Amino acid sequence: MAKKKKIIVIGGGFGGVFAAKTLEERGRGLVDVELINNNNYFVFQPLLPEVASSNISASDAVVPLRQLLTKVQVRQARVMGIDFKTKTVIVMQGARMTPVELKYDELVIALGTGVDLARIPGMADHALTMKDLTDAHMLRTHAIGCLETADVTTETPVKDQLLSFVVVGAGFSGVETAAELRELIRNALPYYHNIKPEEIRMYLIEYAPRILPTFPAELAEYATKQLSKSGIEVLTGVGTESATATGVALTNGRIINSSTVVATIGNGPHPLVQTLGLDMHWGRIRTDRFMQVPGQEHVWALGDAALIPLNDNPGEDPADYATQTAQFAVREGYQLAGNVVAKLKGEELKPFAYKSKGSLASLGMSKAVADVYGIKLSGMFAWLLWRGFYLSFLPGFVAKFRVGLNWMINAIMPPNIVQLRMRPPATRYIHFWRGDKVFEPGMLIDGFYTVIKGSFKLTIDNPDTDEHFEKVFGPGEHFGERVLVKSELRTGLVQALEDGLLLFIAQKDFTRFATAFPTLDAYFKDYIEETFGGPDKAFAPGNIDQSELEKTH
Amino acid sequence: MAKKKKIIVIGGGFGGVFAAKTLEERGRGLVDVELINNNNYFVFQPLLPEVASSNISASDAVVPLRQLLTKVQVRQARVMGIDFKTKTVIVMQGARMTPVELKYDELVIALGTGVDLARIPGMADHALTMKDLTDAHMLRTHAIGCLETADVTTETPVKDQLLSFVVVGAGFSGVETAAELRELIRNALPYYHNIKPEEIRMYLIEYAPRILPTFPAELAEYATKQLSKSGIEVLTGVGTESATATGVALTNGRIINSSTVVATIGNGPHPLVQTLGLDMHWGRIRTDRFMQVPGQEHVWALGDAALIPLNDNPGEDPADYATQTAQFAVREGYQLAGNVVAKLKGEELKPFAYKSKGSLASLGMSKAVADVYGIKLSGMFAWLLWRGFYLSFLPGFVAKFRVGLNWMINAIMPPNIVQLRMRPPATRYIHFWRGDKVFEPGMLIDGFYTVIKGSFKLTIDNPDTDEHFEKVFGPGEHFGERVLVKSELRTGLVQALEDGLLLFIAQKDFTRFATAFPTLDAYFKDYIEETFGGPDKAFAPGNIDQSELEKTH
Repeated sequence: MAKKKKIIVIGGGFGGVFAAKTLEERGRGLVDVELINNNNYFVFQPLLPEVASSNISASDAVVPLRQLLTKVQVRQARVMGIDFKTKTVIVMQGARMTPVELKYDELVIALGTGVDLARIPGMADHALTMKDLTDAHMLRTHAIGCLETADVTTETPVKDQLLSFVVVGAGFSGVETAAELRELIRNALPYYHNIKPEEIRMYLIEYAPRILPTFPAELAEYATKQLSKSGIEVLTGVGTESATATGVALTNGRIINSSTVVATIGNGPHPLVQTLGLDMHWGRIRTDRFMQVPGQEHVWALGDAALIPLNDNPGEDPADYATQTAQFAVREGYQLAGNVVAKLKGEELKPFAYKSKGSLASLGMSKAVADVYGIKLSGMFAWLLWRGFYLSFLPGFVAKFRVGLNWMINAIMPPNIVQLRMRPPATRYIHFWRGDKVFEPGMLIDGFYTVIKGSFKLTIDNPDTDEHFEKVFGPGEHFGERVLVKSELRTGLVQALEDGLLLFIAQKDFTRFATAFPTLDAYFKDYIEETFGGPDKAFAPGNIDQSELEKTH
Repeated sequence: MAKKKKIIVIGGGFGGVFAAKTLEERGRGLVDVELINNNNYFVFQPLLPEVASSNISASDAVVPLRQLLTKVQVRQARVMGIDFKTKTVIVMQGARMTPVELKYDELVIALGTGVDLARIPGMADHALTMKDLTDAHMLRTHAIGCLETADVTTETPVKDQLLSFVVVGAGFSGVETAAELRELIRNALPYYHNIKPEEIRMYLIEYAPRILPTFPAELAEYATKQLSKSGIEVLTGVGTESATATGVALTNGRIINSSTVVATIGNGPHPLVQTLGLDMHWGRIRTDRFMQVPGQEHVWALGDAALIPLNDNPGEDPADYATQTAQFAVREGYQLAGNVVAKLKGEELKPFAYKSKGSLASLGMSKAVADVYGIKLSGMFAWLLWRGFYLSFLPGFVAKFRVGLNWMINAIMPPNIVQLRMRPPATRYIHFWRGDKVFEPGMLIDGFYTVIKGSFKLTIDNPDTDEHFEKVFGPGEHFGERVLVKSELRTGLVQALEDGLLLFIAQKDFTRFATAFPTLDAYFKDYIEETFGGPDKAFAPGNIDQSELEKTH
């Protein structure tokens, strides 16, 4: 009996999952299929905004890959590289990230796309995204946190910033995210006694002249009306120029102060795909009509990562190629699997051809817009259709039943406003506009700052002595060393003199880090002597409270 | 109309919640109640092990405080201190942790207990706990991660360590956690094709001569049999001596290699309670029979944090005092609320008296042990009773309905094996036993190490040149600087020459940190020159790839 061929599928999204599943079914006895994904579950991305709003729970928007693909080997690992010559995929797996080399006979690339917000200063550091489950979770946690804090805040500018929410990009994802965020807040608000509905401000920002640019104009108009009616200010024909810790600046000069900015723009190539050296266009891997990668005998690509021509003479018109949607990815998966098996059997391959059945976008509040088989629908019927459509996509009866049942239960339950906070990052870049305050006297010391760009002025006024101290910090200089001194609250005010960038290091990690460098001892001993007047007040590395360390070690 | 009295309740557990709720009901028109908690939800702690096993979802084990206490002001904040003289509570709230001072007329302390694992070296750094929702979530994520990695691991010692699970402490929490963990793995295993059931090893470790020491002996025996039958090795009369990244060492000399150690021991006073300067015993705040704190005119305490006498002559017998259970906390809450209102009205206070109705412990797999009203029960009936009991505790019909319904649904659904990973910490302390490997050649560079205690030997063997390099590092010295050089994989092996402790700093944060200290420039420039032979290979601070930084900023 001939040895089975090893097919490796990289990527567990719509394309990868349906390709792997079909490959196993149609290639039984002929192929061994392995699917590699960095998460052990398949994300039903269109449902992510509903996870963010708690309309459905996270477990209803994902399906464990092992339950989807029971006969396929599933490997949770991160692909580090591909050696096309030796037909090897190098992955890292496990908690210690040990490298493993996997040989393949045929390789299917289904990595999807990545996020690239580099074009807009500050966006990468300050905007939330809606690409995966962690994103949906983070948005929910963050939004609820804003409500919690606003409920006990009396300072109006701070409260306003907490209660302003901005979604950038009004394609499907942006519209659905804005709608669901609106619903989350609307449902949670009755529990926050000190927040009035009129204090909430929501914005949806779109660069194109209208939202949902790929939709028929009249549906986009209906959608705009619905969103506006629900309290979302829709701004079209305007883009985002920059983002900071306190909000976004738009291309028309307007500044919106907000603690919550969600970026649904910035689709770019997957970082690994960029390194493969394959022929790319528009950030996607060029394939032939059979989804093979030209010049690579055993490599195939599909889904958002691929640029698959729909006819024999594709030009520069995007309509000549498969669109980056779930519908297309699923059909490509079926087709590609058939082609791989055909190739291995020496049979003829089929060119990919598919016409979109339509589009759907949810507007929350049991309304949606749909353009299906040319028929335009809106309102609740479209919404039910949307729900039914995505339910049908869920693989397996069990998943359909559970999600459907949970939808019904959630409709009658009070909203889930539980805030599960996650560990904040130890280091992060924070952007500031001129005039922004970094910290003020009385605030809890949370960390240490280094200037990367710009200049920042520290002012300390001692109320008891009329003493006034000022200092300006530029790139490479640092402030906030009080984390090393046994004090809890800031004594000074730091303000940005120009647009700038700081690197923030959280207190606990900074203190630990300082202990890791005895060489910094001398540096800090001097610094603290000068700045604070003496080492006995200091919690500096050389002076670290050994008893504190020994207590737990 | 007389001004209402302000009552602040600190802590949103059983005691705090029932006290606040009853205070508001019985003191209407007389008091304004505010409850402060660091999370915005009430945790149903006995259900946490079931959250860890995905038997129930996180949202079924918690209830948002605002939905529980609709007429009480809920504040999500961290209490930093209490000034009894000025009757002020100082809290930090919001993302920037701004301090706020709150005045009270009466204060109720319901902070519960804290975790103190300091007595066992390594436990605090390496053991998971089961105190709150994040813990349950982390245990589940971690356990599934172990299965995922084990499924694609062929090295037997590594696989064995991944598939060994240890629970320390066999009181209610430990027994329920071990049982639920067993169930999680049992249900998930069919999806992991490369793991055989016999490769799983589970241990429950108890220092006392038997598990469930507060239970009647025959029930504890039944429980032990059930746990053993389900594959858990129950070890009694033995404690844990130390823990490291690779397992635990027991007091009888045995070492169990395991990637998953859960500590359900280590109950200690809440960190804030320790700082209040109140009269404490056994780590709990002494109160009189009315739950007032002696010597403090307006301070009350209840729940796990308090030591409430049950008779007029309490001695050193724990039975003279209220036990630290949910049952007692709830009754104390009712009673205390009545007493506070009585005090404000000038009426008589009631001494606290209550007799436990019994105890219940779940053993997973639809079995439990119960000692209720003196009647001993075991098996499925006890389990249904356990379920019913805790369902009755859930405040509000809606919560009961939802949890009950979800229990039924989950009974027929496939297990939720979705692994939602959380951001790992940027810095952490890692303990090692003599002989343990820190890293080996070929492993992905993940960070940088400093020696805190012990000594570690680095060995580099160059296969091409027969070159052999060795170096020993002691406290204050560091290794792993390859994070600064543009290389991806370790080239050397580091092993612990004696039991020791390292501080690990994750790569990304370390690199960012190094850029924050231009003063480290000179230090690293020299170091890299010596160690790696040249700065052009180095990613050192002075040489940082400016283009990389500018790309995103």
